This record gives sequence, C-alpha cells and structure tokens, in this order.
Amino acid sequence: MAHYGFIGSGLMGLPMATNLLKAGHQLTVWNRSKEKCAPLLEAGATFVDTPLEVVIAAEVTFSMLADPQAALAVCFSPSGVIQAVAPGKAYVEMSTIDPETSSKIGISIQARGALFLEAPVSGSVPQAEAGELVIMCAGDHELYVALEEALNILGKKHLYLGEVGAAASMKLGVNQLMGSMMASFCEVLTLLEEAGLDAQDFLDIIGAGALAAPMFTAKGKKILARDRTPQFPLKHQQKDLRLALQLGDVHRVPMPVAAAANELFKRAYQYGLEDDDVSALFVSLHPAGRKPIM
Amino acid sequence: MAHYGFIGSGLMGLPMATNLLKAGHQLTVWNRSKEKCAPLLEAGATFVDTPLEVVIAAEVTFSMLADPQAALAVCFSPSGVIQAVAPGKAYVEMSTIDPETSSKIGISIQARGALFLEAPVSGSVPQAEAGELVIMCAGDHELYVALEEALNILGKKHLYLGEVGAAASMKLGVNQLMGSMMASFCEVLTLLEEAGLDAQDFLDIIGAGALAAPMFTAKGKKILARDRTPQFPLKHQQKDLRLALQLGDVHRVPMPVAAAANELFKRAYQYGLEDDDVSALFVSLHPAGRKPIM
Amino acid sequence: MAHYGFIGSGLMGLPMATNLLKAGHQLTVWNRSKEKCAPLLEAGATFVDTPLEVVIAAEVTFSMLADPQAALAVCFSPSGVIQAVAPGKAYVEMSTIDPETSSKIGISIQARGALFLEAPVSGSVPQAEAGELVIMCAGDHELYVALEEALNILGKKHLYLGEVGAAASMKLGVNQLMGSMMASFCEVLTLLEEAGLDAQDFLDIIGAGALAAPMFTAKGKKILARDRTPQFPLKHQQKDLRLALQLGDVHRVPMPVAAAANELFKRAYQYGLEDDDVSALFVSLHPAGRKPIM
Amino acid sequence: MAHYGFIGSGLMGLPMATNLLKAGHQLTVWNRSKEKCAPLLEAGATFVDTPLEVVIAAEVTFSMLADPQAALAVCFSPSGVIQAVAPGKAYVEMSTIDPETSSKIGISIQARGALFLEAPVSGSVPQAEAGELVIMCAGDHELYVALEEALNILGKKHLYLGEVGAAASMKLGVNQLMGSMMASFCEVLTLLEEAGLDAQDFLDIIGAGALAAPMFTAKGKKILARDRTPQFPLKHQQKDLRLALQLGDVHRVPMPVAAAANELFKRAYQYGLEDDDVSALFVSLHPAGRKPIM
Repeated sequence: MAHYGFIGSGLMGLPMATNLLKAGHQLTVWNRSKEKCAPLLEAGATFVDTPLEVVIAAEVTFSMLADPQAALAVCFSPSGVIQAVAPGKAYVEMSTIDPETSSKIGISIQARGALFLEAPVSGSVPQAEAGELVIMCAGDHELYVALEEALNILGKKHLYLGEVGAAASMKLGVNQLMGSMMASFCEVLTLLEEAGLDAQDFLDIIGAGALAAPMFTAKGKKILARDRTPQFPLKHQQKDLRLALQLGDVHRVPMPVAAAANELFKRAYQYGLEDDDVSALFVSLHPAGRKPIM
Repeated sequence: MAHYGFIGSGLMGLPMATNLLKAGHQLTVWNRSKEKCAPLLEAGATFVDTPLEVVIAAEVTFSMLADPQAALAVCFSPSGVIQAVAPGKAYVEMSTIDPETSSKIGISIQARGALFLEAPVSGSVPQAEAGELVIMCAGDHELYVALEEALNILGKKHLYLGEVGAAASMKLGVNQLMGSMMASFCEVLTLLEEAGLDAQDFLDIIGAGALAAPMFTAKGKKILARDRTPQFPLKHQQKDLRLALQLGDVHRVPMPVAAAANELFKRAYQYGLEDDDVSALFVSLHPAGRKPIM
Repeated sequence: MAHYGFIGSGLMGLPMATNLLKAGHQLTVWNRSKEKCAPLLEAGATFVDTPLEVVIAAEVTFSMLADPQAALAVCFSPSGVIQAVAPGKAYVEMSTIDPETSSKIGISIQARGALFLEAPVSGSVPQAEAGELVIMCAGDHELYVALEEALNILGKKHLYLGEVGAAASMKLGVNQLMGSMMASFCEVLTLLEEAGLDAQDFLDIIGAGALAAPMFTAKGKKILARDRTPQFPLKHQQKDLRLALQLGDVHRVPMPVAAAANELFKRAYQYGLEDDDVSALFVSLHPAGRKPIM
Repeated sequence: MAHYGFIGSGLMGLPMATNLLKAGHQLTVWNRSKEKCAPLLEAGATFVDTPLEVVIAAEVTFSMLADPQAALAVCFSPSGVIQAVAPGKAYVEMSTIDPETSSKIGISIQARGALFLEAPVSGSVPQAEAGELVIMCAGDHELYVALEEALNILGKKHLYLGEVGAAASMKLGVNQLMGSMMASFCEVLTLLEEAGLDAQDFLDIIGAGALAAPMFTAKGKKILARDRTPQFPLKHQQKDLRLALQLGDVHRVPMPVAAAANELFKRAYQYGLEDDDVSALFVSLHPAGRKPIM
C-alpha cells in the first residue's frame, strides 16, 4: 500500500481522499480549515499543519483546490509544497486551473527533481463519491503509469494527453461546454415556464432524443425539486468559464456563446447564488415578481 | 388502412411519408418540386398537383415543411389546404414553426370544421428513417387519440401538450437548446484544436461524463470525417433560434446565450454553409489561413 | 396655409403636431385616447373620431405611432387610413417601423393613387419640441419636395434616401447604434460605481474626448439625478433593437453586440422599467442588495 | 526646465515625448527598438540602453507602453525602473493597464521611497500630437501637483481621481465604452451597406443628432477612405476590452455588451487586422465574397 498525501478537503477532495483511504492506502492530509478533514481523520488519515508536511510524509501528494489562487498559494507559500518536493517525491495537481498556472506549478516542481502530473477531473460530487470521475492527465508519463491503481480508484476513465498544460486546457474545454449548456438549459426552462409549458415534459422530450445528457436529467431534477445544495458550486463554473475565455484570448478564438454564458453566471452573484449549485443559475433568470419554482 | 396525405418531401418528409407507406397506408402526396417525390411514387404513392387536392383525397393530411413562410403558403395559397378542409377532414402540421403561425393555421382549419393537430418532431434524418422521432402534439385531442397508430409509425414517443401553440413553443425550446449546444460544441472544438489538443480525446472524455449526448457523438463524428452532408441543415437551425428568440421577445425572457448562438449561425451564411449540415458551423469558426479539418 | 392631419399624440406626436399648429397650419387630429389631444384642441386643432376622418379632412396626414402593430392598425383597420386615401391625398408615416411593415403600408397607399412618404425621425422629446429633429425620408419624391416647409417646421435636417424602406432601414440603423451605446454606457457606469469611482468624473472625461456625444451628457445627467421621466421610453428602444435584429436576419449580417444589448433591455422589463426613460436601463444593471443611485 | 525621462516611443509615446522636448525640457529616452527614437534623438533627446538608466538620469520618468506585460517588464526586469527608483525620483505610468498591474508597479515604486503617478490618457495619435489628451491621474497627489506644467503640455485636461488603481479603472471604463461603440458602429455600417444604403448619409444623420461623437466622424472617414493606418491599433482596443472584462469579473458586474464586442474584435485577428487601426474591425464584419469597401 502506498502513502499518499491529499491537500484540499472540499466538496470534491473529501470523497476522493476517502476513496483512497477505503482502498487501504495510508493518507496524510491538509486543509485550510481542519474541521472539514474530520471524516478523513476518523477514517484513519493523519492531519498535518502545512502542505509542506504533507509532501514530507507522503510519496505522492494529490491536491484538489478551488481555483488558481488557491493552487498557487498551496504550492508557493512559505510552508508550501515547493519547500519539500525533491527527487523521489511526486505531486498531482487535480484542481481545475488554467494551463499557465499549471505550468508555473509543474515547472517549479520538476525543477526540484520531483515528478509532476496535471490531472483535472470531469464529474462532480456523485462521481467523486462513486470513484467514477474521468481523469485528464498530462506531464510526467512515468508518474502517470505508476499511478495506474490510484487513478482507477478515483475514476472510471483516465487518459494521458501530453505535456503539462494539455490536461488543464482539455478540462477548461469540457467545463466551457458544460457552462454554456447549463446557461442555455436555464434560458430554455425559463422561456417554457413563461410560455405556460411543463418543465417535466421538456425533460422527458430531450431525454428521449439527441440532446439527452446525464447533466440535464440530474440538474433538471434538482431545479424542479428546488434543491440548491451544491454539487458543483456556481462560482466554480463561472471561474472555469472565465479561465476558458482567457485561454480563448491567448489563442485568439472568438467564443461569443461562452462569453454570453459567463456574463449570465456573473449576474447570479448579484442574487447571492455563488455558493449554491450551478443549477441555481435558473433562479437568477427567473423574472422578478413571479414566484420562482426553485 | 387509412388514406393519408403528405405535403412536403424534403429531408424529413420523405422518410416519414415512406414509413407511412411501408406500414400499408394509402398515400397521396404533393411537393413543390415533383422529382423529390419519386421514391414515394415508386413505392405506391399518388402525386397530385396542389395541396388542395391532397386534402380532398385523404382523410388526414400531414405536412412537413421548411419554415413558417412555406407552411403559410401551403395552407393559405389559392390552391392551398384551407380551400378543401371541411368537417371530416384533419390536418397535422409537423413543420417547426412559431406558435403564432401555427395558431393562424390551426384556427383557420378548425373554423372550417376540420380537426387540427400541431405536431413538430424532435430528431433529424436518421430518426425520421428509423421511425424514432419524438412527436410533440397540441390541438384537437380526439385527433391525437385517433392518430395513435400513425404517431407510433413515425416516432418512438409522442406527448399531448395542450392547446395549439404549446407544441410549437416546446419544439422551439428543444431546438434553442440544440442550437446553443452545437454553437458551444464548435467553439470548444476550435479552441482545443488551436491549443494543440486532439478532438477525439475530447469526444471520448465528454462521452464518458455528464455531458454525454448522442448529438455530440454523431456530430463530432461528422466534423472529424469532414462530412457536411445535411441531416439537419444549418439554415433550419438558425431559423429555429430566430423563432425561439422571437418567442423570448414575446415573453420578455432575456436569452443572451441563444442570441449569441444565433449571431454565430448567421455568420455561417457568409461562408455559404447554410445548406450544409448544422455541424458545418465549425468551418465558419475556424481561423482563416489555417487548413480547416472539415 | 395647409390643412394637415396628425395621427398619434404620444410623447413625440404631441410636440410635433403642436409645431405644425404654431406655424399657422390647420390641423385635424386623432389619437386612441382623446385626452392626450387636449393641448392640441386648446390650440385650435380639430379632433375626429377615426383615422379615416383625418384623411378625409386633410390634404396630407402625418402619423407618429408607437410600433409596427399600431401603424398597421391605424392604416388597415375598418375605420383606418386606407379607407380614405385617394388621388390628391398624401400620407406621411413617421413612426419607427421595420421596412417590411412600411412597404406594406406604402404600397397600399400608393395603390389607391395617393402619395406616400416614409419619414422616421432621429431625436426625442426635446428635439421634437424644438423642431430640431433629423428626418429621414423615402418614397414619393414629389411629396418630399412639396413638404419642404413642413419638414423644416418639424426638423432641423431632412434627407431623401430613395425608395420606401430605405428610411425605415436607416432609422433602425441609427437606433441600433443608440441602443448599443446606451447599453454599454450603463455597463460602464455600473462597473465604475462598483470600482468606487465617480460617475461625474467619467462624464467629464468622455465629454472632453472622442466619445463626446450629446446623448451621454443628457442621459448621464438623468441617471445622476435619478430622473426616469420618459423622453424615449425603454420599451421603444428595445423594440427598435428587435426590429434592427430582424433586418440583420434578413440580410444575414451577424450583429452580436446589438443582440447582447437587446437581451439586456429585455431584462429591464423584469424590473418594470419599460415605460421609463431608456436610461433607466441603468437600474436593472445595478447589483441587487445595493441602493441604486437612480 | 526639468529633466524628464520617457520610456516607450510607440504611436503615442513618440508625439508625447516630442511635445515635452518642444516645450524646452531635457529628455532621456529608452525604447525596445532604438530606431523608433530617431526623431527624438534628432530633436535633442538622449538615448540610454536601459529603463534603469532613464530613471538615473531623470527626475521624473514617464512611460507609455503597449500592455501590462510590457509595463511589468520595464519596471521589474533586471535593468528595469525598479532598480533605480529612490527618494527624489518619480515615475509616471501612462500605459493603459489594469488596476492590479498598476498597483503592483505603484506599490513597488513607493516602497523604495519614490513618488508614483498612474496617468493613463484618453485620446489617440492626433490628440497626442496636438497635446490635447485627457489625462486621468491617481496616486501621489504631491506629484500630480508638481507635474501641472508637464500635464498641460501633454493634454488639454487632467483630473486627479484618488488612489492608485482609480485612474487605471477609469481608463478601462472609457475604452470599454469606446470599443463597444466601435463594434456597434461597424455592425450598423455593415447592415446598412447590405440594405443598399449610403454610409455617408448615415454619418450625416448621426452627426446631426444625439449620437454625434468625434470618433464616428473620424473613424467613419477612415472607413470610407479605405484607410487602415493605425491611430489606435485594433489589438490595443481588444486588450483594453479584455482588461475591462477582467475588472468586471473582479467586481462581479455582468457586461454582456462588452463581452460580445470583445469576441468580435478577437475575430479580427483571424483576418490579420490586429496591427491596423481599430476601425478596420469593419473589414472583418464584411461578408466574405463581396468586395469590402475598405
């Protein structure tokens, strides 16, 4: 059994770390607020006070954080990962971050003789819990090969995409599509509701045709049940659209649909919906003065 | 066996009418250009010179046309449907048109004592050929009930949604989502290509997750195979976005994502792609000066 | 002195008709609600009960109405303009309507032997009051020439642009630019306010540079003074963006900026701002939960 | 007379530095490519090999660079400004950059005991040449006061807006409005051209009304004269829209019109128009297959 480190015990990190523990691996963990690690500690994980100590304790350290700022802080702060990486150590960055930030981290890790894998995932809380994530990998191929068993614990599918930055870009592409789909889904649900139609009929119809996607089923159910409990927080979706648009700016690719979706998600902050599930976007589209169904 | 009429032998109408024939029904047909009916005539259908004569010959007449203008012309022209409808006759409008146009047609049909069903479909050529369309119905409920067998020949699922206009609105909602998804899909494929990533990897990744929709599989394959053969012509997708936006205007629902997608599809006309498959939108997003993969 | 007819006594029609009266012309008027004509009747105008009677009384009838629906109704209703036009009569349509609607009206008028001028204006209430509108004309050139004096009473500038439809299209272009500018202006004011900057400084800066437009001065003042009194109602601006987008659809011109502006104005209806001045758009952009400055 | 430093001899920096020279001030200059300084050297300026040496030579150093990357490099590179600033020195950052970058530079300068003024300008080449810029200032107020004469040489108006970041934000707001106006202007010109109308008529009409802005006159003339010579390069306008959108993201202000305009400008890169004047955006909107008027 291996000794893994895990940094970040948020909505995603917690079930992922849990799965590594359940598979029998030793786990050292760190999170900004220790309380969120409680379930892991009860299950046998060891908490340390800094990211640096995680890396010292473990052979391979995974991190799953909210955004590029958090990923940079965990790596480069005075008690950060970078202070402990060395030959024989490995770092797996699973946060959804832009390729530029990922490269900054990866190059610094590799410059100290450690191995680096960029490994963002597709899937949200239910997939993380079930170990059914799709894991996009890039960076040191020997590390990718060596982590075969861990990747199989965490996900149902993993791919190696090439040099550092490739997986980060791929992930942003996935989440750009997801965000645009969710924004359009909420627009249509609002239109149909205003036109006096039944949302469940709409879900049944698209569920039987070419647009049938598990996300519409899952998020449609949440919207109809007025359930805003976050599986994938709205603010993370907006952050990913923003990062995808930055990537589009770098490559000079016009992406007006993603840009429109991004502005729509930004509007949801004005309603205080940023920590709710991404599907709560529906609430902010709902005409004021009418009782929202959510 | 019934005697059906079928008006419109385009990409969709032809396989639909063929399925009614194959099921043993008598069929009288009309199309603006007779040649397109050839396969039907060989299979035993009778061609007449005007929509009016179709209605005279058949108990129930289906129509499947390109847009509101065509639907209005077939109904209200001097030799149109409206001249022949009468008690005992029924008219089923399956074209994708706006609820206002549909109501105009339905009210006029009903005012002459005939039955009317608005019955737009979800699905494109392969579904039409396989009799696996999803059929959204609204209007005279007794006609909906009476047509049970015909609806089962044409589609795998049918719903009754209420008064005339309901099915037309629902259909526009479906195609609004479809158009926004296709536009976003092409944006992401362009971005990933510019970032040096492999489109097939992207298709594999989304195919394994919450975004997996048959449309992405089918259209992704067409894009990678450089196949622009129309299943659902781009100009029809743009027309549907336009009609959905008009409906949004009526109901005062802001739909910036659909609006951005619509403008993107309009740009494809500048590349002469309007008669190609909707997935040819990808070509118009592709940076000039680079060899498009499609 | 001539005998003019004037149909429509709204925000624009009232001061325009007043100016014709003040210049010494005889005036017969009609408006849907007679009360709005009170100032004109006091000043010597004659009220009649239908548009038809206006045309019978006057040599040249002007109309200034809210939208294409109103323009069509006034022309084609059973007691409409079309029932009375004949050789020797002339009709001047000054409403902002789409070229298709204008052509419908113009062709019908001309078919009855009367002369027709399409003459939408640039300018809002203050310009209408001051007789300083800019009048875009198209249609019968001899009527344009004959109306030289009346056009000089109503406006400070008039142009002849060609066949019916040309002036309507030009007007939509002007109002498309205006709506996009207003939407952007409100976006920037909101951003700067959130960034803690002073709106008056911004107005001073743009007032001294290449962006200085009288509209920014006038509307900036209204926004800072929390004055929503309509000079140009928001719903009319949104209607014009919608009509411009329809024209863009006809000509296949992608106009993503106008489309985004249009969706933004639609959102203002959700705040009940449609009858307020166009500058009240600012209110709907303002983050909820903060006290709007307007 | 003062001894000024000037870093950056691009389209804007060259005429600005020239005006300081003409007013009798001593000038030490640096630019990445020395050739661009030739006119300044002929007029009496001294060229040095690094930004550091400019600061050593001059009391107050102005910089006018292309973007945040350039501004950061000039300040923080091994031979950058930061190596030489000290009590008694002052640095005036006139580049259009985001407030975050500006603060990074300002704080570092001030931490070394020097004075810092953020001073972006409104106006392009003709205004820079004529000394008619509008200068937005923020930072050390005593430096603002001390530079009264220099600011009067460079511009026709200057304001003090508060702490570092305020002027950068204000400038982005100005250029956000400018970019959205230019994008809308090009959309309308394209629409009117496709509708068979005359662009000069449109310019005359808006020139007589509430939308009259010097920019439309100047850029309309360039477009009609097919003159793409850069006064304000398209890529700078796009960069400013991008920075404004980033600021909007920080403050959670939805700005869909600016976002749509930004994506439109990005498309112009696909046509190789980035180094042309911002008004060349018109070319990229022009339907392919028709002869562009520009």
